[in-house]
Amino acid sequence: MQSYPEPLADLVSELAKLPGIGLKTAQRLAFHILSMKDDEAIGIANAIVNAKKKLKFCSVCGNLTDVDPCAICADPSRDHTTYCVVESPKDVVAIERMREYKGLYHVLHGVIAPMAGVGPEDINLESLIHRLSGSDEANEVIVATNPNIEGEATAMYIARLIKPAGIKVSRIAYGVSIGGDIEYTDDATLLKAIEGRREL
Amino acid sequence: MQSYPEPLADLVSELAKLPGIGLKTAQRLAFHILSMKDDEAIGIANAIVNAKKKLKFCSVCGNLTDVDPCAICADPSRDHTTYCVVESPKDVVAIERMREYKGLYHVLHGVIAPMAGVGPEDINLESLIHRLSGSDEANEVIVATNPNIEGEATAMYIARLIKPAGIKVSRIAYGVSIGGDIEYTDDATLLKAIEGRREL
Repeated sequence: MQSYPEPLADLVSELAKLPGIGLKTAQRLAFHILSMKDDEAIGIANAIVNAKKKLKFCSVCGNLTDVDPCAICADPSRDHTTYCVVESPKDVVAIERMREYKGLYHVLHGVIAPMAGVGPEDINLESLIHRLSGSDEANEVIVATNPNIEGEATAMYIARLIKPAGIKVSRIAYGVSIGGDIEYTDDATLLKAIEGRREL
Repeated sequence: MQSYPEPLADLVSELAKLPGIGLKTAQRLAFHILSMKDDEAIGIANAIVNAKKKLKFCSVCGNLTDVDPCAICADPSRDHTTYCVVESPKDVVAIERMREYKGLYHVLHGVIAPMAGVGPEDINLESLIHRLSGSDEANEVIVATNPNIEGEATAMYIARLIKPAGIKVSRIAYGVSIGGDIEYTDDATLLKAIEGRREL
């Protein structure tokens, strides 16, 4: 990129650091940014700085937030007896999107993965135990970690940890996707869907 | 996106303004930026601000540059008798990439497109005439506008304008792409390739 003036070369290489953005796309984005109005381009830069500066993790549930405790933890209209345990703040967004779940969350920021050297003490799990033991009204913990080996193992571990305290621990259901094709559903999922059948 | 804290929602909507970046990709990028180290994320923001602040168009050739005149115009080792006319700074980058062309450039910042209401006076054409008339050594103008209707029309217009001054005007060659398949080459290109055949 010898022929780029330096500020342009810098911008291209910074943009190319983002996931899924190769050198060609970075070039295209850079030229687009240069063609934007000044305040629009500066708006993007400010949004990055702002997000980095203002967002932190909720000290109660571990979700991304700009106020502490986060809006969900602080909302008295939510059901404070139910806790949904997820791996990452993205999962909170996905579950909130359906506008059905009214309980609280707990974000683990990872899963137990012994092969990768991640143990129970490396994820945000201890604070869940503290939360539950500090609450008289904790009733149910729904474990919504991802349906893969690490997510399963983490769910098991959490269940073993919490059940003795007399709190119900449940796991989200496995089965076929709505709108999906049974023909194209993998064997493991189909098996789970049949095992988990419910009477009509 | 009700469930996003505001700085995150802002970042997502700012990123989604970029071309080819939808809401899903913007979300993915935003979460990635949040997971970056502070100085890395701020680095992206600074690169945007810097590029917008420092880059301008060369007052001689119209190319993007951080110094005026640009590095190409100011380079005495380049061939100051040949001018390559292109539509945009991206085309300069593409031609410089092959490291073969040693002449100067002139960036039009558009093409003549009567249907879109763009006339010869709306593109950076007058300054080309000034440049050529102010130079004793101008020898050839290579028109490298895009091979489409507007690019063709612009090339014709430039030729008619400049030839009377005794300067040679040439157009880049049309033909099949290196590594391409004749089988899949469109008729118009194939016709041009045969018309433009050269003796071996």
